[in-house]
Amino acid sequence: MAKMIHSMIRVLDETRSVDFYSRAFGLAVADRVDFDTFTLIYMSNVETGFELELTVNKGRIAPYELGNAYGHLAVSVEEVAIERERLTKLGLHPGELVELNRDGKLFGLFFFISDPDGYKIEVLQRHGRFL
Amino acid sequence: MAKMIHSMIRVLDETRSVDFYSRAFGLAVADRVDFDTFTLIYMSNVETGFELELTVNKGRIAPYELGNAYGHLAVSVEEVAIERERLTKLGLHPGELVELNRDGKLFGLFFFISDPDGYKIEVLQRHGRFL
Repeated sequence: MAKMIHSMIRVLDETRSVDFYSRAFGLAVADRVDFDTFTLIYMSNVETGFELELTVNKGRIAPYELGNAYGHLAVSVEEVAIERERLTKLGLHPGELVELNRDGKLFGLFFFISDPDGYKIEVLQRHGRFL
Repeated sequence: MAKMIHSMIRVLDETRSVDFYSRAFGLAVADRVDFDTFTLIYMSNVETGFELELTVNKGRIAPYELGNAYGHLAVSVEEVAIERERLTKLGLHPGELVELNRDGKLFGLFFFISDPDGYKIEVLQRHGRFL
């Protein structure tokens, strides 16, 4: 059966993106595979086998068009408020903490943060279905 | 530490998308959460805890703009050629099988397929780093 193993995004600056995902989410470079015209960087941590694949197309300068279709990669954390505080102190400008309720119960407690290319990442409190 | 738990994409037609991800990759609806203006559908299978989150914004008719930034969700399968054949028979139009080599060795054997909204999914043979 098909197993979801990674999500790929195109980024402009390898160092900038690796630095962001490392500092923000504790992702480390699991593999870096260089080809003539592009480089693939696989980032992950011990929490899951799923990886973030960064594609750097060599010579690309113009920012990619994000569109409005793709939404975000979501991560869960133990204490979302503390995590938001930590990211603020790092100068990474997380958005406001949002509490989404449904039927009078907490569905999700989260904030969004943007990576250096503008991709949104949703940071969710480990709660309910977001474990 | 942050754990990657889902990837969110916006889709126009819930039934059409659920049908595609179910038939193509054996993903089932793990949860469906309805709000006033939007519905969230979480799809997964037994291979991993990672989920695909579909967002349906009610009343949205215009296709979303895909842009050129977001790449794809990747899945691994046991036998990529057989899987491609199966998807062809289902009328889902997978792309050609591609063999990507590096330093004279197979790096990835894969094809791409598009979902009903045009998102690309990479289907990789379980090999090397794609397990």
